[in-house]
Amino acid sequence: MASSELIHDLEKTITNIPDFPIEGIQFKDISPIFLQPKLYEAVIKDFVEFSKGKIDVVCGIESRGYLFGIAIAVALEVPFILIRKKGKLPPPFIGQVYDLEYGTSEIEMKTDQLQKGQRVLIHDDLLATGGTTEAAAKLVEKQGGVPAQFSFLISLEELNGSKKLEKFNADIYSILKY
Amino acid sequence: MASSELIHDLEKTITNIPDFPIEGIQFKDISPIFLQPKLYEAVIKDFVEFSKGKIDVVCGIESRGYLFGIAIAVALEVPFILIRKKGKLPPPFIGQVYDLEYGTSEIEMKTDQLQKGQRVLIHDDLLATGGTTEAAAKLVEKQGGVPAQFSFLISLEELNGSKKLEKFNADIYSILKY
Repeated sequence: MASSELIHDLEKTITNIPDFPIEGIQFKDISPIFLQPKLYEAVIKDFVEFSKGKIDVVCGIESRGYLFGIAIAVALEVPFILIRKKGKLPPPFIGQVYDLEYGTSEIEMKTDQLQKGQRVLIHDDLLATGGTTEAAAKLVEKQGGVPAQFSFLISLEELNGSKKLEKFNADIYSILKY
Repeated sequence: MASSELIHDLEKTITNIPDFPIEGIQFKDISPIFLQPKLYEAVIKDFVEFSKGKIDVVCGIESRGYLFGIAIAVALEVPFILIRKKGKLPPPFIGQVYDLEYGTSEIEMKTDQLQKGQRVLIHDDLLATGGTTEAAAKLVEKQGGVPAQFSFLISLEELNGSKKLEKFNADIYSILKY
């Protein structure tokens, strides 16, 4: 999908921060992408190509999932639904707990925004272990929506996040794989 | 600035949630705006009109400040810099503490993205007491940038947030005032 030029430009732009936030983790800093509006637009164009005609709604995961997610939805002229961290959405909403390496976390989604049967793109900047994305897909299913597509800027392949998403039978797309 | 039609459409769309997140607070839920791509685009157009030709960079405050902020920056073809909650940005960065009603909080910004002398739009969805916005402007000033403009979707007038921003001698714009 993504042209080799886009991949090259992104790899040049994203910086690798060793041992952040903890020792042993190679953090991918995507923030320099947002300094280059033309590069940002090329990323959106690529995501839009993947999703065009395939989905009715985009769900973006707080907070970096908003940065590309909203533009994908606007370009496709479909609604954008916020998936937020626990405690930030007013009622009515539902929540989904998921496991972290140590402990658990929870995300929430309003229950008056998704229609039954709608095909959903779940978008985030990064696919790591897949825990958050899986929880987002469960929130969509609980409301009768269909998790039809997942898209990410980056997938960290060795963490096997896509394994957790297999059961949804959805298309999965990552522009960059490490 | 904003047409009476835009203001009317927004007032119809934003819902008022009494006593959230705590008793006595009237929460303005802006999330239905993102369900309507045309309305979202009209909001962006209005923000862009306010900032066109006046600024070199947009800084958006996590996380709802990203939803309009990134699109404003892309439309103006200028860089977008993330202002994040404490602990999320890799080095190099600087932080700024600010007061909350009970206790304090802190926001951070990378120090390798803003150039000295650049004129900055600081954008967030909501101006309440102004504490976060003031802290963001201080982060810009600490790096030799100029907080030239502030824009918000909503300003809660009775909380007097604009008072805290007076010292920056910047233009302040809110589409909606309550």
